[in-house]
Amino acid sequence: MTAVIFDLDGTLVDSVYQHVVAWQAGLRAAGIELAVWRIHRRIGMSGGLLAHALLREAGRDLDDATLRRVQDVHREEYLARVGSIRPLPGAVELLGYLTSEAVPWTVATSGRLATARPVLDLLPAPGTGLLVTRDDVSRAKPDPDLFIEAARRLGQPVEDSVIVGDSVWDLLAARRAHALGVGLLSGGYGRDELQAAGAYRVYDDPADLLDHLDEVGIRR
Amino acid sequence: MTAVIFDLDGTLVDSVYQHVVAWQAGLRAAGIELAVWRIHRRIGMSGGLLAHALLREAGRDLDDATLRRVQDVHREEYLARVGSIRPLPGAVELLGYLTSEAVPWTVATSGRLATARPVLDLLPAPGTGLLVTRDDVSRAKPDPDLFIEAARRLGQPVEDSVIVGDSVWDLLAARRAHALGVGLLSGGYGRDELQAAGAYRVYDDPADLLDHLDEVGIRR
Repeated sequence: MTAVIFDLDGTLVDSVYQHVVAWQAGLRAAGIELAVWRIHRRIGMSGGLLAHALLREAGRDLDDATLRRVQDVHREEYLARVGSIRPLPGAVELLGYLTSEAVPWTVATSGRLATARPVLDLLPAPGTGLLVTRDDVSRAKPDPDLFIEAARRLGQPVEDSVIVGDSVWDLLAARRAHALGVGLLSGGYGRDELQAAGAYRVYDDPADLLDHLDEVGIRR
Repeated sequence: MTAVIFDLDGTLVDSVYQHVVAWQAGLRAAGIELAVWRIHRRIGMSGGLLAHALLREAGRDLDDATLRRVQDVHREEYLARVGSIRPLPGAVELLGYLTSEAVPWTVATSGRLATARPVLDLLPAPGTGLLVTRDDVSRAKPDPDLFIEAARRLGQPVEDSVIVGDSVWDLLAARRAHALGVGLLSGGYGRDELQAAGAYRVYDDPADLLDHLDEVGIRR
């Protein structure tokens, strides 16, 4: 029995670009200009780590109040755009299939519940009490805590789980959890970046993964 | 003497994500849902080719009136966002340096003048009559016509020119023009995608290229 743990943004819902634009607005509010592609490459980390990493790239250091302001503006700008977000192709079908086959699955996201909730509502819900967000652990990706907690809630060993994500940070965290990481291109990363971060396999999107579940050992 | 021909969006200005979001809005206006990363991977083609390619991915075929509507909505939505666009790091300095060293350079973009004008105004202007846009040639990237026309206007052989772009389509067109293609990551493509399309070298952004001009043979 293989459990499946999914990242959310860029993996199940098409929300990465909205996050990118919202982070850019947050950074601008703190007087920091960073090119969009650099922000994109940091999406999927915890918000705090992401803000720190971006500030490092910008050669700046910020006090805690400004850092909170960056995160607050990100949240507001993201929520203002959340209505344009759709599930990625195959996401609803893939989760439905796993449920119908009694494969244990859940979602573990670096985002806070406040930003994750509106897009989670577009998908079949994980079982009661199974969802793991940034609010549930003290360290988010690339630390493995989110995935370890998700496996614990599923009652499955994390080492035997498949972790599906679109970002380098998902795959690094999967390796640190001794789990099998599967990459999806649907978050906008290149295939080589995901492979270099340790992806066991890379697929286009949830629909493509659903077509190849046998390759990753997911079965009833 | 090496001439340098630049792509515009994602190469000199940080405008790719605004184009992506605007194309998504255009496609939605025609009832077509496509994931953002698939749109991103088509940016840099001519608008017509891009719309056709995206429709093919969506498994749809559209009449000319609907196709024009997709392009019209893209233009409107893009122009509504153009105020948030900035030059990429080093773009202004790189073009200024080439001018100061009397290296011939210009810009050749798959975009129409109407969408290119507002962001060109953020940069040093190419010499009078040197700019090439989609309005000047019958076929845009990945056809080589834009770059061949740019070299003609510069009075330089295209085979001895360096073509700088952020997308696979720039690099494919550079090869078809028998020119040296240099890739930039600043449009959000992965390094492997640019190398696989024939990039001679890949740099982060214009600032990184300016630091390594000697590697690509650009000198006074």
